[in-house]
Amino acid sequence: MISILTDFGLEDTYVAAMKAVIHAITPGERILDLTHNVPPGDIARGAVELWRISAVLPAGTLILGVIDPGVGTDRKAIALRGSGFICIGPDNGLFSYLIDAESVHSAVELSNPRYHLDHSSTTFHGRDIFAPAAAHIANGVPLPELGPALDTLVTLPQPSLQVTEGHSIQGEILYADRFGNLVTSIGVLSRENTSLCFRPWIGATASFKLDDADPRVLLPDGSPAPFVEAFGAVTEGSLIAYIGSSGLLEIAVNSGSASEQTGFRRGQPVELKLKG
Amino acid sequence: MISILTDFGLEDTYVAAMKAVIHAITPGERILDLTHNVPPGDIARGAVELWRISAVLPAGTLILGVIDPGVGTDRKAIALRGSGFICIGPDNGLFSYLIDAESVHSAVELSNPRYHLDHSSTTFHGRDIFAPAAAHIANGVPLPELGPALDTLVTLPQPSLQVTEGHSIQGEILYADRFGNLVTSIGVLSRENTSLCFRPWIGATASFKLDDADPRVLLPDGSPAPFVEAFGAVTEGSLIAYIGSSGLLEIAVNSGSASEQTGFRRGQPVELKLKG
Amino acid sequence: MISILTDFGLEDTYVAAMKAVIHAITPGERILDLTHNVPPGDIARGAVELWRISAVLPAGTLILGVIDPGVGTDRKAIALRGSGFICIGPDNGLFSYLIDAESVHSAVELSNPRYHLDHSSTTFHGRDIFAPAAAHIANGVPLPELGPALDTLVTLPQPSLQVTEGHSIQGEILYADRFGNLVTSIGVLSRENTSLCFRPWIGATASFKLDDADPRVLLPDGSPAPFVEAFGAVTEGSLIAYIGSSGLLEIAVNSGSASEQTGFRRGQPVELKLKG
Repeated sequence: MISILTDFGLEDTYVAAMKAVIHAITPGERILDLTHNVPPGDIARGAVELWRISAVLPAGTLILGVIDPGVGTDRKAIALRGSGFICIGPDNGLFSYLIDAESVHSAVELSNPRYHLDHSSTTFHGRDIFAPAAAHIANGVPLPELGPALDTLVTLPQPSLQVTEGHSIQGEILYADRFGNLVTSIGVLSRENTSLCFRPWIGATASFKLDDADPRVLLPDGSPAPFVEAFGAVTEGSLIAYIGSSGLLEIAVNSGSASEQTGFRRGQPVELKLKG
Repeated sequence: MISILTDFGLEDTYVAAMKAVIHAITPGERILDLTHNVPPGDIARGAVELWRISAVLPAGTLILGVIDPGVGTDRKAIALRGSGFICIGPDNGLFSYLIDAESVHSAVELSNPRYHLDHSSTTFHGRDIFAPAAAHIANGVPLPELGPALDTLVTLPQPSLQVTEGHSIQGEILYADRFGNLVTSIGVLSRENTSLCFRPWIGATASFKLDDADPRVLLPDGSPAPFVEAFGAVTEGSLIAYIGSSGLLEIAVNSGSASEQTGFRRGQPVELKLKG
Repeated sequence: MISILTDFGLEDTYVAAMKAVIHAITPGERILDLTHNVPPGDIARGAVELWRISAVLPAGTLILGVIDPGVGTDRKAIALRGSGFICIGPDNGLFSYLIDAESVHSAVELSNPRYHLDHSSTTFHGRDIFAPAAAHIANGVPLPELGPALDTLVTLPQPSLQVTEGHSIQGEILYADRFGNLVTSIGVLSRENTSLCFRPWIGATASFKLDDADPRVLLPDGSPAPFVEAFGAVTEGSLIAYIGSSGLLEIAVNSGSASEQTGFRRGQPVELKLKG
């Protein structure tokens, strides 16, 4: 299965062009659209989404990720094999939350023109280099055929996260989702089968259990939000904090949009305080 | 075939997560996206869309519907078998226009954790409970395996519709579609193979034929709109009323948006007057 | 494979209805969504998108295109066989950039009710006439079965394009894409395997080579934009012109939106000056 994430949107035929190329090379391959509506050029958002979805993708899935504001520059086109997935896309950090640096088994630069479309453009490597590479890999072409090995890859900075042992976790708002829920960098629950980028820090607080801690959440403006199990715990329109479906602390409004109601934005600080 | 309708949008990877779960359980199953852009939490809109699309879905289709503002509360997770379809989703009325109460053959609560994802969340039952249930049902797991039988289900109130025999039908605007066409609750044509929620009323006026009645449509502001067969019957920019592709009276502007041009909104009254 | 392009959007279940009809007639057929977000009624935009995507569609692909503001009028429903594709949709010019008039091998009017859905509507031929026709053609039904032959088809006017041999090419802005890149009617590179609508003009300047010409681009307001190979050639926020991934001259802002930054709109003139 080839899973595709882009910032191409669905207004044009860019996504269809990639799929048509894949079909031509490996006709029977199943394709899963992860999302194509990452804000244009927002590599960090794409990287978080790839990490989120990775928890439910079957091992061995090919991940074709194209958020590529540097297309046509000297940024490299890459394929990398991690412990769970093979990722194909630009070398700009898009996969760096999905695959821990230490779990990249191998990476190659997609420089072998034999596996590019004829007459490749300088502006649409998704169609001309990445989609063909994904399709050929799906057909069994080994990574070293596609180009020379790479030793170092571009990685994104980690989201802000500071842990004061047994006292508080300070993070930041990563983005607002479709429902206006504010997803933060504070990961609380252990998740064994993923490669959560800030798991090492969480690992340092492994003895911490929410049940014992009477936690409260401080919002960017310093006001508190109740920490609850689910939306229904409060009346409609109330602001709450809870552990979302990917193990990250989220801030939401029951039957409303926390993003619109609060005006809080990406990068603003959030704190989970423990033991009162 | 598993058909999916949600309010998850396409900005995040929520829909992809459900599909990945389905693929993992029943890899070859075909998936049809009905829509994922129902306005957040708008159960009634989703219910109408499910009714509309049901006319062309093959009998036996699994319908996975997740508009679930009550996730994490005590609202039940259900699967129900109707005369034509099996529906999986929250027990909040989402399927109540699709399946007449009297045609529900059986319903169960999806409480058997064996068919949930491990470590289910309290906020994303689409991924953790509904998608696995749909996939297991597609694999042949019988409904009673998934949980205990339910006797009563939540139903939505019927859209407003009053018939003055031989004189007029009074309904309401249900929503505006992509083109700004205002879809109303006034269903005029008989449709044998569906379970249109207000069919009983229409049944009561079965002797009524539009051809004989010289009908006019009164808009929410009391002004009339010509009742025509198709868009092309009037000049561009003109307001018209006609029987839409699902048998419901619609108000539209030829080559324009009735919603924008009139400002009419959901819930406002519309009247189809007969024999003028 | 059936490829579908519409202006139906993804808010309603119109696209799903077409797919459900196709599945019912030809269950195993693969479907490729080209785009469903063409602006409502914008036939010209759809026509350009079909031309753009055609370069990567496998020969023999069925193209189901439904941008149909004239539905229910006397505009014809057609299927046509070109050198590369079979197109099904309204006879309003939607396919006229994709398929040169001279390369239409045959065309028929889809008037045989045997291949329509029962009880066809006057407002949704995508579901009732075009989708069934595409599915039956995929099943091997020959075009003449679907209706009588047509001798003439509606064609769109060509986009504005004037060539002063060896001196300049004057065109117009066709549309802004998802990234705000302004796609123009100026096609510079020869593309052997497509039927670019203004290829004849380009053919007239076949001896012209960009390498030799020191080209500059004049924007609608008369100001110049550097003509470059790729986005990365200039600093972020700078306006550039370049040959886009379909061989058309585009105007873009590196890491920004040319459409928003300049306010330039469809139909405004752009000039590529040579040997300046």
